[in-house]
Amino acid sequence: MTTAQQSALNLMPLPASAQPGTGSLRVDSTFSLVFTGYTEPRLERAGERFLRQLARQTGLPLSFKPAKMAKATLVIQTDHASKEIQEVGEDESYILDVSRTTARLRASTPLGTMHGLQTLLQLVDVTPDGFAAPAVTIQDTPRFPWRGLMIDSARHFIPLEVIRRNLDGMEAVKMNVFHWHISDNQGFRAESKKLPKLTGLGSDGHYHSQEEIRDLIAYARDRGIRVVPEFDMPGHSSSWFVGYPDIASTPGPFKIDDEWGVMDPAMDPTNEKTYKFLDTFIGEMARLFPDHYFHIGGDEVNGKAWDANPKIQEFKKVHNYKTNEELQAYFSQRVQRLVNKHGKAAIGWDEIFVPGAPKDIVIHSWRGTQALAAAAKQGYRGILSNGYYIDLMWSAARHYAVDPLGGAAADLTPEQKQLVLGGEATMWSEYVNWENMDGRIWPRTAAIAERYWSPESVTDANSMYARLDIISQRLEWLGLTHRTQPRKMLHRIAGPATSEEFAALVTLADVLEPVKDYTRGESTSYQAITTTPLNHMVDAVPPESDAGRRFGELVDKFISTSCLDGNTRERLRAQFVVWRDNDAKLQPLAQRSFLAKEATANSQDLSTLGTAGLAALDSIAKGQPAPDAWKAQQLAIIEQAKKPKAQLLLIPADAIQKLIEAASAGGACSSSKPQ
Amino acid sequence: MTTAQQSALNLMPLPASAQPGTGSLRVDSTFSLVFTGYTEPRLERAGERFLRQLARQTGLPLSFKPAKMAKATLVIQTDHASKEIQEVGEDESYILDVSRTTARLRASTPLGTMHGLQTLLQLVDVTPDGFAAPAVTIQDTPRFPWRGLMIDSARHFIPLEVIRRNLDGMEAVKMNVFHWHISDNQGFRAESKKLPKLTGLGSDGHYHSQEEIRDLIAYARDRGIRVVPEFDMPGHSSSWFVGYPDIASTPGPFKIDDEWGVMDPAMDPTNEKTYKFLDTFIGEMARLFPDHYFHIGGDEVNGKAWDANPKIQEFKKVHNYKTNEELQAYFSQRVQRLVNKHGKAAIGWDEIFVPGAPKDIVIHSWRGTQALAAAAKQGYRGILSNGYYIDLMWSAARHYAVDPLGGAAADLTPEQKQLVLGGEATMWSEYVNWENMDGRIWPRTAAIAERYWSPESVTDANSMYARLDIISQRLEWLGLTHRTQPRKMLHRIAGPATSEEFAALVTLADVLEPVKDYTRGESTSYQAITTTPLNHMVDAVPPESDAGRRFGELVDKFISTSCLDGNTRERLRAQFVVWRDNDAKLQPLAQRSFLAKEATANSQDLSTLGTAGLAALDSIAKGQPAPDAWKAQQLAIIEQAKKPKAQLLLIPADAIQKLIEAASAGGACSSSKPQ
Repeated sequence: MTTAQQSALNLMPLPASAQPGTGSLRVDSTFSLVFTGYTEPRLERAGERFLRQLARQTGLPLSFKPAKMAKATLVIQTDHASKEIQEVGEDESYILDVSRTTARLRASTPLGTMHGLQTLLQLVDVTPDGFAAPAVTIQDTPRFPWRGLMIDSARHFIPLEVIRRNLDGMEAVKMNVFHWHISDNQGFRAESKKLPKLTGLGSDGHYHSQEEIRDLIAYARDRGIRVVPEFDMPGHSSSWFVGYPDIASTPGPFKIDDEWGVMDPAMDPTNEKTYKFLDTFIGEMARLFPDHYFHIGGDEVNGKAWDANPKIQEFKKVHNYKTNEELQAYFSQRVQRLVNKHGKAAIGWDEIFVPGAPKDIVIHSWRGTQALAAAAKQGYRGILSNGYYIDLMWSAARHYAVDPLGGAAADLTPEQKQLVLGGEATMWSEYVNWENMDGRIWPRTAAIAERYWSPESVTDANSMYARLDIISQRLEWLGLTHRTQPRKMLHRIAGPATSEEFAALVTLADVLEPVKDYTRGESTSYQAITTTPLNHMVDAVPPESDAGRRFGELVDKFISTSCLDGNTRERLRAQFVVWRDNDAKLQPLAQRSFLAKEATANSQDLSTLGTAGLAALDSIAKGQPAPDAWKAQQLAIIEQAKKPKAQLLLIPADAIQKLIEAASAGGACSSSKPQ
Repeated sequence: MTTAQQSALNLMPLPASAQPGTGSLRVDSTFSLVFTGYTEPRLERAGERFLRQLARQTGLPLSFKPAKMAKATLVIQTDHASKEIQEVGEDESYILDVSRTTARLRASTPLGTMHGLQTLLQLVDVTPDGFAAPAVTIQDTPRFPWRGLMIDSARHFIPLEVIRRNLDGMEAVKMNVFHWHISDNQGFRAESKKLPKLTGLGSDGHYHSQEEIRDLIAYARDRGIRVVPEFDMPGHSSSWFVGYPDIASTPGPFKIDDEWGVMDPAMDPTNEKTYKFLDTFIGEMARLFPDHYFHIGGDEVNGKAWDANPKIQEFKKVHNYKTNEELQAYFSQRVQRLVNKHGKAAIGWDEIFVPGAPKDIVIHSWRGTQALAAAAKQGYRGILSNGYYIDLMWSAARHYAVDPLGGAAADLTPEQKQLVLGGEATMWSEYVNWENMDGRIWPRTAAIAERYWSPESVTDANSMYARLDIISQRLEWLGLTHRTQPRKMLHRIAGPATSEEFAALVTLADVLEPVKDYTRGESTSYQAITTTPLNHMVDAVPPESDAGRRFGELVDKFISTSCLDGNTRERLRAQFVVWRDNDAKLQPLAQRSFLAKEATANSQDLSTLGTAGLAALDSIAKGQPAPDAWKAQQLAIIEQAKKPKAQLLLIPADAIQKLIEAASAGGACSSSKPQ
């Protein structure tokens, strides 16, 4: 099957291989499934979950009771159990065979079975004759064994129901590691019974009890997902020190931080009290979290707290540590030994990769493939998050283009490449809470999931976007709110409004994106992250504007026809008129709502862009290169519109700039008359 | 305060009285509340619920911890407890005083306090300077003590989470009775431990355990809502007989019904076994449901089962019962006595109002105010549901115009009027399930709630619609899905579609309504109610088309200006062009999806209506009456478009007919030239 044929299947991630069959399997109210071979309660729950989800996406009243073999539409055979505690690299493969009369799913382990069920769910769609799945034979297995999503519950407390539905989303796109960043400067969110002041004083009262954590781990295991906890140390740990100042490098009292950025406080690596404390703590958490890996963080220690403490300076001298990096290496080794003592292996950010580190650690790279490659060359395993920081508001295509085995890792030997286990999308929550988290994670993370699962050759961004749009809709049937909640947030911004006013707000929001990278955090007015309301336009609009992307494609298409395609021209013109006139429609609302008012400059820019677009079309219609003065004037307008305002970018600016340049250049567009 | 001033407050239901103040109370992240006077855990939960809801609707990061008196933004004083088991007619009044600096809420009982909190939530809105509540003094008390919503969990099983969020909606609009129609021919949904075959054989496995029911009752009590269970008898009871055929009038075996309409099976009123069974059953359920009222149904016994049983015929002769109604009266009296024996009073449909009925019963009228008035004249209390059948797909305005003290009840004496306790909106679930129930109940039920709560003089439908639109949006913050789920259902109908195709589907859906009254049930192809998928266009579109209503208002406005208003004319023209061209855009989708294809005729009709509308405008522009032949031709087109297709009505047809008539008549429109 070619990639094009695979793409036609509307699957995400695309399978390792697929052979099309003839006809399709009808899915109606009689649909049923049966388990053969190995079975366990988890599989039965997966079967019922599959049927419930099928009922939701089709609206068919299905029976959730198990069928008798002879009558089942879907026959599932699993060979044997998977490991009691899910391990890295277990067999996750499956074979799914859909014919006109039946579907057969075979897998070695329940992990493969569950992945196959998700594939079948994605195959079912509405057809001219009812719901159906196309006949196909799929043989599928993941490219990487570590396919993760990290959620930061510390900066903003994330309720368990939000995490649960995101685990549902992970299952749908075959991700298998939930990395829970559960403590940081801004809050400690996991209950410790032995060290109760960690949450008692180190949180605002919002944290997860051990019982809730155990429930969540069980929920994840039910979906073939490992839970790797991260307790970031020795930095990112102000919240620990509120209750336990003794383990800090500087004297207290400490308070929970509320700011954006890297903080100074750090654990005292020279104090044996620190290791005694961590021995107790890691021992307790190692029992609570069954996974073999224990994430110890290790990132972004700025060393100021160490420099400020004469005892620590003295310790460095005695041990002949010239730099704070060497001191951190000492700390890392001590902590890694504690992790091992409690039966686990350590995973941590780049900084834990220090000379003499045990070979069982996993390097989690926020720095890039170069660091991963360097580690692999020394026999260390690693995973990549650089390029998958979904808090940076990049496009799906930009993340999609990043490969864990790209860059410096591309030159590794096949054996070394085996050491690169996969990657993790990271949802840092400085500007993310219960309400907009789904929209920050989805649908883009489905594209990242495809990068981790599908063959290396699957790289066509157009195909990805076409399928992403479909999976995005389906993810909402799971209860994710990435499409519905932004609209509710716009209603909040609008307040009571006429349908015309609200439509104008939607028109504006549809072509805005939040500023990229760390621009928002670096802007002074937004630095108090936990007390800043996330109810602004920048919080409501998705990281990537679909309308903006489609408009860009339309302009490219128009220019590629030498600006001769009349149909496209008329669509562009209609769009420009809407944008030009939109600001006037939005004005009454902007005068009533302070939240709408914040986007006034963006709205005026959009109106200006609409006018500029019309001018460019008019100029092109004249059939000769536009004067330089006109071009300079227009480009100045564009330049102004490109400047971020209210932490927002106006996406159509780039494409309109192209039109202006096309109108000005002596190229095809300017030299041709419109039809 | 005038009604107009009250309306400006955007409250629903409107309060009994409101005095505007000066300025407004700013609501920001420091908002806090404190309870003074009487308090109880329920009030504390209500306070936290208020803060959570305020945080949701504003996006502000509020603290949910109780404040200290001196700093609280909202000071709440409750005088004393309400009854341990909520009773009809308890004091629900409150006084809410909002000034520039503080809000004060006073109430005799927690019931009033909770109503006042909902009022304050509705007052908070976005302003030019932040979120704020206008300064105002509200003295409020309900007009009727019984303000109910009935949900039928029998025809389709309704999961508890759906019921819970509808209780949240009821709280928001100050309704206080949840009437749970929990058994019917199609299913028995309440666990009986003494008679386990009621659910064991009388349901498809979907029912509520006693523990779940107790939880739900506690959830309702937390919101000031009574729970009145209904076990419909002696008819509507096929599901009872599957497990217990002995109490039926005809020999078994019986099965759970799957059909629309009135069924023949009925309990045997002549067999002492029946009363022994009901004694056991009512005793058990009277302990499970604490409310003083126990709903025994009693409606729609067609008598066929009794006529078919010679022993029953003999019994009638012996007792000198000439009609089956007399026989049912005997049954009712026996059951009412059982209800009394177990410490409760009976409520039932009109049919239970029989000579000699105990004075403590409540007549629940599906027949109308005449029945209520007749009962009141004999000293019996009653509530009205005739006119509030929200399954009939009427407009909000039509329900809103029905008054429990209207019609025949208007002539009652003041003392007799006291016997009319209020009313209940009834959500029968023949074509309603977990997915579209919210959309069938809301927002229309908020208008009915206003009828039950607000002064009799509050009857302006325009004001109601303006406020209904606002409350509708707010209800979604509670988790109700009446606005978001229909869109998901349209996505299901569309399958993978371009944004233009989907927009065309939305344009069509926006002007469609389901057929009214019992049309759908009477149509043969839809009679199997529990196995018919509710995934059709008729299931997705709301009972009332907002776009259709607004279009009708626009046409009325145009005609009222003698068709001279050019702005309105251009808006109409633009709308007609969109409708005319919509069918072509929808075609590709209709060819790919059987669900979209079902609406093909509606789509073609809409296109035709667009063309007819343009023709009417053109004719009006000519400034002279259109020829009779043209009028006849156009009206024939309208007539065709008005015919229901796929159980759907095309709402703009009536207004376009008005335009055609305006163009044809020798009136102002046809004799005037457009400006």
